[in-house]
Amino acid sequence: MSGSGKLPAIASDAVLKQSVPVPEDFEKVQGMDFSQDYAYNSRATDLIASMRTMGFQASSVASACEIINEMNSWRGKHKGELPEHEQTGEFDDEDRQKATVFMGFTSNLISSGLRDTLRYLVQHKKVSAIVASAGGIEEDLIKCLAPTYLGDFALPGKTLRDQGLNRIGNLLVPNDNYCKFEEWIVPVLDKMLEEQETEMAKLGKEGLNADSAAIWTPSKLIDRLGKEINDESSVLYWAHKNKIPIFCPAITDGSIGDMLFFHTFKASPQQLRLDIVADIRKINSMSMEASRAGQEFDGSDAGARPDEAVSWGKIKAEAKSVKVYADVTVVWPLIVAATFAAQRP
Amino acid sequence: MSGSGKLPAIASDAVLKQSVPVPEDFEKVQGMDFSQDYAYNSRATDLIASMRTMGFQASSVASACEIINEMNSWRGKHKGELPEHEQTGEFDDEDRQKATVFMGFTSNLISSGLRDTLRYLVQHKKVSAIVASAGGIEEDLIKCLAPTYLGDFALPGKTLRDQGLNRIGNLLVPNDNYCKFEEWIVPVLDKMLEEQETEMAKLGKEGLNADSAAIWTPSKLIDRLGKEINDESSVLYWAHKNKIPIFCPAITDGSIGDMLFFHTFKASPQQLRLDIVADIRKINSMSMEASRAGQEFDGSDAGARPDEAVSWGKIKAEAKSVKVYADVTVVWPLIVAATFAAQRP
Amino acid sequence: MSGSGKLPAIASDAVLKQSVPVPEDFEKVQGMDFSQDYAYNSRATDLIASMRTMGFQASSVASACEIINEMNSWRGKHKGELPEHEQTGEFDDEDRQKATVFMGFTSNLISSGLRDTLRYLVQHKKVSAIVASAGGIEEDLIKCLAPTYLGDFALPGKTLRDQGLNRIGNLLVPNDNYCKFEEWIVPVLDKMLEEQETEMAKLGKEGLNADSAAIWTPSKLIDRLGKEINDESSVLYWAHKNKIPIFCPAITDGSIGDMLFFHTFKASPQQLRLDIVADIRKINSMSMEASRAGQEFDGSDAGARPDEAVSWGKIKAEAKSVKVYADVTVVWPLIVAATFAAQRP
Amino acid sequence: MSGSGKLPAIASDAVLKQSVPVPEDFEKVQGMDFSQDYAYNSRATDLIASMRTMGFQASSVASACEIINEMNSWRGKHKGELPEHEQTGEFDDEDRQKATVFMGFTSNLISSGLRDTLRYLVQHKKVSAIVASAGGIEEDLIKCLAPTYLGDFALPGKTLRDQGLNRIGNLLVPNDNYCKFEEWIVPVLDKMLEEQETEMAKLGKEGLNADSAAIWTPSKLIDRLGKEINDESSVLYWAHKNKIPIFCPAITDGSIGDMLFFHTFKASPQQLRLDIVADIRKINSMSMEASRAGQEFDGSDAGARPDEAVSWGKIKAEAKSVKVYADVTVVWPLIVAATFAAQRP
Repeated sequence: MSGSGKLPAIASDAVLKQSVPVPEDFEKVQGMDFSQDYAYNSRATDLIASMRTMGFQASSVASACEIINEMNSWRGKHKGELPEHEQTGEFDDEDRQKATVFMGFTSNLISSGLRDTLRYLVQHKKVSAIVASAGGIEEDLIKCLAPTYLGDFALPGKTLRDQGLNRIGNLLVPNDNYCKFEEWIVPVLDKMLEEQETEMAKLGKEGLNADSAAIWTPSKLIDRLGKEINDESSVLYWAHKNKIPIFCPAITDGSIGDMLFFHTFKASPQQLRLDIVADIRKINSMSMEASRAGQEFDGSDAGARPDEAVSWGKIKAEAKSVKVYADVTVVWPLIVAATFAAQRP
Repeated sequence: MSGSGKLPAIASDAVLKQSVPVPEDFEKVQGMDFSQDYAYNSRATDLIASMRTMGFQASSVASACEIINEMNSWRGKHKGELPEHEQTGEFDDEDRQKATVFMGFTSNLISSGLRDTLRYLVQHKKVSAIVASAGGIEEDLIKCLAPTYLGDFALPGKTLRDQGLNRIGNLLVPNDNYCKFEEWIVPVLDKMLEEQETEMAKLGKEGLNADSAAIWTPSKLIDRLGKEINDESSVLYWAHKNKIPIFCPAITDGSIGDMLFFHTFKASPQQLRLDIVADIRKINSMSMEASRAGQEFDGSDAGARPDEAVSWGKIKAEAKSVKVYADVTVVWPLIVAATFAAQRP
Repeated sequence: MSGSGKLPAIASDAVLKQSVPVPEDFEKVQGMDFSQDYAYNSRATDLIASMRTMGFQASSVASACEIINEMNSWRGKHKGELPEHEQTGEFDDEDRQKATVFMGFTSNLISSGLRDTLRYLVQHKKVSAIVASAGGIEEDLIKCLAPTYLGDFALPGKTLRDQGLNRIGNLLVPNDNYCKFEEWIVPVLDKMLEEQETEMAKLGKEGLNADSAAIWTPSKLIDRLGKEINDESSVLYWAHKNKIPIFCPAITDGSIGDMLFFHTFKASPQQLRLDIVADIRKINSMSMEASRAGQEFDGSDAGARPDEAVSWGKIKAEAKSVKVYADVTVVWPLIVAATFAAQRP
Repeated sequence: MSGSGKLPAIASDAVLKQSVPVPEDFEKVQGMDFSQDYAYNSRATDLIASMRTMGFQASSVASACEIINEMNSWRGKHKGELPEHEQTGEFDDEDRQKATVFMGFTSNLISSGLRDTLRYLVQHKKVSAIVASAGGIEEDLIKCLAPTYLGDFALPGKTLRDQGLNRIGNLLVPNDNYCKFEEWIVPVLDKMLEEQETEMAKLGKEGLNADSAAIWTPSKLIDRLGKEINDESSVLYWAHKNKIPIFCPAITDGSIGDMLFFHTFKASPQQLRLDIVADIRKINSMSMEASRAGQEFDGSDAGARPDEAVSWGKIKAEAKSVKVYADVTVVWPLIVAATFAAQRP
């Protein structure tokens, strides 16, 4: 740099490129005005309404709410107007087509207090089908047998191990809960095996055929567990009650897997079987028979952005979708309060 | 694996370690019950109350609200009870000691709709001092001259460049806004230089001494900008009005830096100076004179967890602190609604 | 702040707490000295050696290499010294016990160039068993039929959809590859169904018993696919050759799931079945029969830190483990080059 | 789902869209073949070469190396061919124009073993200018006075606080190091103040003018610290030796800030001043006078992707840039080994 007062000639190139005129429909960024009466201790719908024009993830959360509200309010034709082979998918109480809604949840959502929110959605038939991880299934059942506790993210693993406590994020589950779960589930597995063998005795070599009553699948197992647990705090219980299937192909990937493993030794030479082909047929059929392509929402992050899913045709190019980057426990209660649960019950 | 029905002997070791009895004060994980009347379209304080026992980041957000509420309600001694040299820090309207509150914000918070929330906090004197990034300062001023617009995270850089639009996440700022800013700020810098030189003429070789009126600092510049902008939508305006200092040592790290750069050529051989030593003295003094160690909250992530800050003594070992992992636009409006703005205005 | 020159009395409290004497075995942070001859264009083992004392994730990568090297070099008793019921797990060429090594991989590892590295490990029997995601299985096969291409993270979903290209991160897979895959797999599924039915005809109502030859499982399906693909670039091929089982309970969670779905219509009223109970028995047995608890490494992030896994007993409290936070494509080739592939072949 | 064997008619729509023919220049994804002789214990350039076609972040790392190599090998005109006012920027030993290289680093890079790598680059004049955070400056100096140690990410803050140890990720710095730093720096600040006052006595009311010898700036302070530390392990030392300016507008944002704060009480009524306007003039001038737009690389993540920076014109639309998502300690040694340090010294 020279000490002179002359601006280097090159700087004249550095002037800013003039902007094009801003289109009239461009929306201005604006936030909540907490000086206003409606804003103090705001209601969910007011928070969401103001988040729409806030930008960043706030806008994404507001978009998610819009998509959910559209999905919930969509109605198609009356059943009577449809030829018989198109009378598939979901209908409302007045026999009008509505969207088939898929919901996904992972173990940690059930471990957290979001279980109550998910249970609410299933109890009130806000969803048509569920895809869950193995942990999500077993934690829902275990919570009926004994509670999960608040802990801390930083509790050291070795100390907890010595105390027989398992940590999930900042939550704690005592080992005894798993012992109670084992005691509870073994008789159910015994009964299931018995039913399997009874049906096989009837069907013989046709035991594997389509719609064979001898064949258990993960979704059929989960439905049975929901029936047996018979507890109104349970997601599985309400799914059973309301005939909402819960799919979980990797059901063996957790505590239930260990129970099934131990059960093979108890049952030998007989063996309980869980077939995953029948379940893929069932879920794909639901998806294809939906009168409106089921819009899915879940609480996990498979890492890809919606745009990648569009390239795969997993999300239709014209479908509305949004990915919210946030811990689900932080945004989900707010979203539910402003959508599914926005009206006085 | 053998086909035999015998469980390998080794499996007997795999039994679960028995849990210690769970202490009585352990709190159960529980969520919001949307079947209840209070829960529909929930208010911020109800959402936060239920998040306390939800686990994961929901619990962290609830803890953050508790800490803020404690900080806001804390009161110490009456001014009259204190020896003169201890009559420092913040006092409420009845002359009782209250906490000195530091708030930090970065550029993107101001670019988003959170600016309105931050402005509310400064307007209503909820904070004692602010630490901001350069972008935070200039975006607040620019928004008084022309709006920022909602865009999309995926708009391609080159196209926007050709249109003279700048992207910040999913927000858009036209280049013209920066031209307007330049037009606005140059006369202010001229006046500042004039004042600097007038004072230097008086002080001569003592011009650099402590409390010299010739010396501009970033916080003094920002206070002047707040005065000059004279716009009630501005955080800087209210900070000036309410004598809340805004510190920004790296004020040259953005658009204002470019303006100062161009100004050196215009002003030569004179040159405006910005001293950062006086500002570090001012902020450290505020921190030391606080009657209650200022609890800080900010919207950026310096990457370290509070526990690392405790090792440094940056957070007192006994101080309450919590780090919330979430996009600030998603949680901050909810937190403010449930704390600072929980009461009808 | 007063303008006086006096340091507030309170500042005397702010002095730093004196450190305890640093224990002699504390190791100093130190990096690579690129001025040295050994360092230019460094070899993997030299890079890793220097990373050990660099701190942050560099130290974690170096720890990962140490754990792998220990795992690989560990040898237990000679088979002849063991009672018959303890002659389980893995043995080296000289009949000495060695560690049972579990490796996990997800779809994107196979889509990327890491497939060649994984194939190398399986081809040279560096692992004992594999746990994979559905995508990992099918991408390995599809790559034998047609290549995957380099693309860009930012290619827009809708354009790609119109071109029949699928994006995985910055990789591209043409739809035609999936068509080729369908053509290839349908005859295999036909054969499998035929074999299932042949065995059922023999076994009748005992068709579901333990070790029934009528029962296909995901690992048995994958082994057959490895045999049929008969291609030396394939991970599945070498797993079949070297009798290394690949487990994938959620095998239906992808393209193979669609193929199985369509196949149910073709096969009706017969139906291919895939049982997941036999597979959980097989993998748990391998784990329990290991002479040295199998140390697992995988390329995905289930989100939890090792310390959480210790609380669950999933990692033994005394076991060595480390979690490396980095895109696996960035660190895995370096790790393999410095461990499994450190010696001239 | 019906049990019938008929595929729902709707499924015929679900066929895959045919792909467009893949352009000939599409590159196939391919990894390292560890069966080959060149691959065992691979050299950095071989690893990088194979990473180019691996996809994901591996490809990004390889791109980063290509950009660095291009930047290093670029040569423009001979000085003799240029009119005088264009004889700015950097020239090689044969007076040919070369790129002006800006490097950024944050505190944690210096705390880690990457300091040795950064020192190597500065010592061998591989960079033209540096932008650093306050911590980066002081940790470089402190490491000359006492070592930083390897610790663990999970060491609890309170225990460390009681032992007088500060944690930075998995590194430990004893408090005594900071005491040593204070002892070392105070006499330097005294000397600087003395020089400031001597010059002010000469210049009087013109003391703030452009190029005033009375004015200290952060970069001038840092240069002096590099001279005074006089230690070949130091980045600052080599920057001073090689006249490579180090910019750090927020120099008061750390331990040096505390030292300057305490110094104001010692010095009163005189006061050391640090002006940031002169530094913004200096760095902007370097950038504008560069014969080839300085390509910047740094080790921190300001959160934005290059495409956002392109919209701002911070990266020229036609400039090559890549953002690598990885802990810098994991990739930087590999990148340096394959680029700056690829040739035997």
